[in-house]
Amino acid sequence: MRNIKLEISYLGSNYKGWQKQPNYLGIQGNLEYAIKQITGETVKLNGSGRTDSGVHAMAQVANFYTENEIQADLIPKALNSKLPKDISVINAKEVSLEFHSRYSVHKKKYKYQLYLGRRRSPFLAPMSYHLKCDIDIEKMKTESEKLIGKHDFISFMKKGSSIKTTVREIYTIDWKQEGELLILEIEGNGFLYNMVRIIIGTLVDIGRGKINRDISEIIEAKDRGYAGHTAPAQGLFLMKVDY
Amino acid sequence: MRNIKLEISYLGSNYKGWQKQPNYLGIQGNLEYAIKQITGETVKLNGSGRTDSGVHAMAQVANFYTENEIQADLIPKALNSKLPKDISVINAKEVSLEFHSRYSVHKKKYKYQLYLGRRRSPFLAPMSYHLKCDIDIEKMKTESEKLIGKHDFISFMKKGSSIKTTVREIYTIDWKQEGELLILEIEGNGFLYNMVRIIIGTLVDIGRGKINRDISEIIEAKDRGYAGHTAPAQGLFLMKVDY
Repeated sequence: MRNIKLEISYLGSNYKGWQKQPNYLGIQGNLEYAIKQITGETVKLNGSGRTDSGVHAMAQVANFYTENEIQADLIPKALNSKLPKDISVINAKEVSLEFHSRYSVHKKKYKYQLYLGRRRSPFLAPMSYHLKCDIDIEKMKTESEKLIGKHDFISFMKKGSSIKTTVREIYTIDWKQEGELLILEIEGNGFLYNMVRIIIGTLVDIGRGKINRDISEIIEAKDRGYAGHTAPAQGLFLMKVDY
Repeated sequence: MRNIKLEISYLGSNYKGWQKQPNYLGIQGNLEYAIKQITGETVKLNGSGRTDSGVHAMAQVANFYTENEIQADLIPKALNSKLPKDISVINAKEVSLEFHSRYSVHKKKYKYQLYLGRRRSPFLAPMSYHLKCDIDIEKMKTESEKLIGKHDFISFMKKGSSIKTTVREIYTIDWKQEGELLILEIEGNGFLYNMVRIIIGTLVDIGRGKINRDISEIIEAKDRGYAGHTAPAQGLFLMKVDY
């Protein structure tokens, strides 16, 4: 038995998310189908976590067990020849049998792209959130720093999600501007359901003066109602998963 | 009568090119349809030139005549509300009646994106030419400079194109590297049919040693057979048209 770890890049626009659903392949199911073409085996692919409908990944991680003897470095090309063009396996490696993409996660990094251009961009529209109003970027940056550290982030979780603990630790938040894109990169030991998108929506609502509470107050409230809207999926990218 | 000049950005992937064809709207026809929704008039939209199937534009220029009195700066938003998401009017301006998008062109700028990454990129695939082999980038850069100036570029024109003169002048060629993208920007007083794509294909063939002739020899031959392959449409962007 071998345990194969994949790194996968995908444009989420055409998928209802990572996860296989009844009668729907999703990104996971497309990969499992390609693996079957190559190995002849029906495998279960463990992702590092689900990504929602429309969310992209630069390097999602997933693993599967196989008896097949294919050399690991030949796997990406072999799978890509069977996959749709908007999914690409960028790396494959044989790892110890104990490795599990979800349970072994050490930290995760996401980025979110805000598009500040005046006119709709055909090129960036599928990969960003178009902000058409004036926003106070400096205020957003200052407020975002209050997210760093270990907190109960239940105010930034989609209501009704069932989970053991809502405490997470954010390690870093970085902002950069590339042309008309304002990009936030956020790294932490884990993220609650819709957490990054609610953080972005809240920062945007603060930046445009729709919310006057500050981030610390929203964290302390432990109430989803205190935070802002959920920013759209298409601006979000899973960038990196560390083990 | 007013003459309206538009600047239009589009992702060409989903279109068989700029031009309206029998039973096919193309990008031009989509814009004419949107203009009709706004002005009530059936107009003919003059583009600065055709772009081929799959070619993109950051700022294609086109003009149309109208009796409608809508303020020019309200036109982009009005048209965009009627257009598919992969077409965006980024600017509109009233110009003199003599202005014609095609006949008044002074110079044009294109860019071409070569993707040098090892694995297929879901994000860049629709907007670049993936080179999977080793190429001599320095040689391509050196050779490309021989294109600058006034030459008969018939070796770089799709065979069978009918045109008065095949002499064109290239003003500038600039290369830049952005991550795994190698980008060529080329500006000239005009370009023959498929000229930029054949230039790129030829430079790639020189860079990978498939062609050993140099660019000057290919220009002098005045024979399409001396040049290289036609690089795919999806890497090409019409960047700017100057008047």
